[in-house]
Amino acid sequence: MKSFAQTLRMMGLSKQLVETNDFATKRDAYYQSKNWDEARFDEQTESDAVMDDIEAMCSVRGVSREQLRFIPDEHGGAVAGKLIVLDPDRETGVVERIDCTRFGSGAYSIPSTVEHLSFETDAKFVLAIETGGIFQRLQSHKFWQTSNCILVSMAGVPTRSTRRFIRKLSDECKIPVYAFVDCDPYGISNIYRTLKVGSGNAAHLSQFFCVPQARFLGVTPADIREYRLPTHPLLDVDIKRARDALKNDPFFKSHKPWQKAMAELLEMGVRAEQQALAKWGLNYVIEEYLPRKLANPAQFLP
Amino acid sequence: MKSFAQTLRMMGLSKQLVETNDFATKRDAYYQSKNWDEARFDEQTESDAVMDDIEAMCSVRGVSREQLRFIPDEHGGAVAGKLIVLDPDRETGVVERIDCTRFGSGAYSIPSTVEHLSFETDAKFVLAIETGGIFQRLQSHKFWQTSNCILVSMAGVPTRSTRRFIRKLSDECKIPVYAFVDCDPYGISNIYRTLKVGSGNAAHLSQFFCVPQARFLGVTPADIREYRLPTHPLLDVDIKRARDALKNDPFFKSHKPWQKAMAELLEMGVRAEQQALAKWGLNYVIEEYLPRKLANPAQFLP
Repeated sequence: MKSFAQTLRMMGLSKQLVETNDFATKRDAYYQSKNWDEARFDEQTESDAVMDDIEAMCSVRGVSREQLRFIPDEHGGAVAGKLIVLDPDRETGVVERIDCTRFGSGAYSIPSTVEHLSFETDAKFVLAIETGGIFQRLQSHKFWQTSNCILVSMAGVPTRSTRRFIRKLSDECKIPVYAFVDCDPYGISNIYRTLKVGSGNAAHLSQFFCVPQARFLGVTPADIREYRLPTHPLLDVDIKRARDALKNDPFFKSHKPWQKAMAELLEMGVRAEQQALAKWGLNYVIEEYLPRKLANPAQFLP
Repeated sequence: MKSFAQTLRMMGLSKQLVETNDFATKRDAYYQSKNWDEARFDEQTESDAVMDDIEAMCSVRGVSREQLRFIPDEHGGAVAGKLIVLDPDRETGVVERIDCTRFGSGAYSIPSTVEHLSFETDAKFVLAIETGGIFQRLQSHKFWQTSNCILVSMAGVPTRSTRRFIRKLSDECKIPVYAFVDCDPYGISNIYRTLKVGSGNAAHLSQFFCVPQARFLGVTPADIREYRLPTHPLLDVDIKRARDALKNDPFFKSHKPWQKAMAELLEMGVRAEQQALAKWGLNYVIEEYLPRKLANPAQFLP
């Protein structure tokens, strides 16, 4: 009974948030409940569970948690390049035009929720980058200008709002997404896989948070050989993750080229970071590697 | 001998970076060395140690690692509010004026290195915020407009570039910095203390990365009582950290009001998060808590 009352209160909170054009984090919702008398939650795990249930229920009708106005409490990714973000003001509706070519060495930080945003761009692709270091290099050297693209820093496994941002941007502007990450089981099966098909523990929500059009630009096992990159030995945890992906993960099981690449990586017994390209010069990645790869997107791993 | 050669090569790299107006992360520098023949590093720990030595050596002459063009590989904080960032282009020197009131619900993402930036503002203070959730709330509701301030999201312990950004901004524009973090030993002795006096393991570098003018707006142990905030019991690790701070940390030992506050927290045996204010309404923090606190900055903890 208490849990039913709590679910109703939580849905009521969502309704109120929509009406006032406001939002709440999971934690906000938990603390809000402290004023719900009998329906108060004692632990945040309980309110999170109720919110997850409501989210699952609404997702089958195509409504995302962000549309219910429950937002994540995590930093968004950073964006630079040939993109104008259109962001209507919460209260006045006046649209702010945010030009991502005008941030100098800085960048645009994606908000926690992106449903209200729309885009204008004539960029040819989105480049989603694993590390802050490579993002800063491409941004500072205006790689987006010469290659006519949009740079997104994922800073590790991309957050929900970063994934949703890339998905909306790619859908609305009909441009491809290329992922540029480390060549190791973590970069491939955690970062890239999460970007492309969503995170494993929220399969019913992946419709909002996956970027199915993403393709893997690199670093690939073949790149390690071709560019004679400095490597590190695979750790036990890498080997375990790679074997697990090959054996149990539907994503890898359904893509022959990925099975081949992962098996190759296991056989080579090494991993390489995207910054390993610096062996050939700090800006080799800009002047050689990316232009060569971008000449053949058809060869990117799926 | 090898190590001396490596140090010279690393200093040579710094010189080259300054001359080409470029930069390198620690990892970039390690991979660069793979082309240094005999002077190549076998492990990144070795190249990091050499870089740390060079940094320490230069710091006594007032030169920071960022001025040597060695930058961190970490995301910067997010900024919104009454600030214009002036960022001269790497190549042309043309200055980009970045208006942090024009980011809609998004924000300005601080670059990895900020030495080249300067600022224009008539804001009254900088508010440095622990969580992305509270930052997003204050940003979306344009708290910076009504209170004439600059909001910075630290997203946990602030990175070097975030601290340096706040320090430069406060120094150049002569405005105070107020920290708004959770009331727990981590928020106080890790996040706030790092912002104010720098991180413990880099004492000789703190001259660049501390914000001595920072003051602690809250959440304080007194706030927990006054606002009847929902709390959680202190964990063993919290208690250990608080006792350790009181006993061994020069920062707490030199500030009586902090000793009193930390002892009070230990006595109460609880901690409270900044989002706990949501108990009184999602926007209580904007409408009540912050305006009341900001009326009396003289009462902030040092």
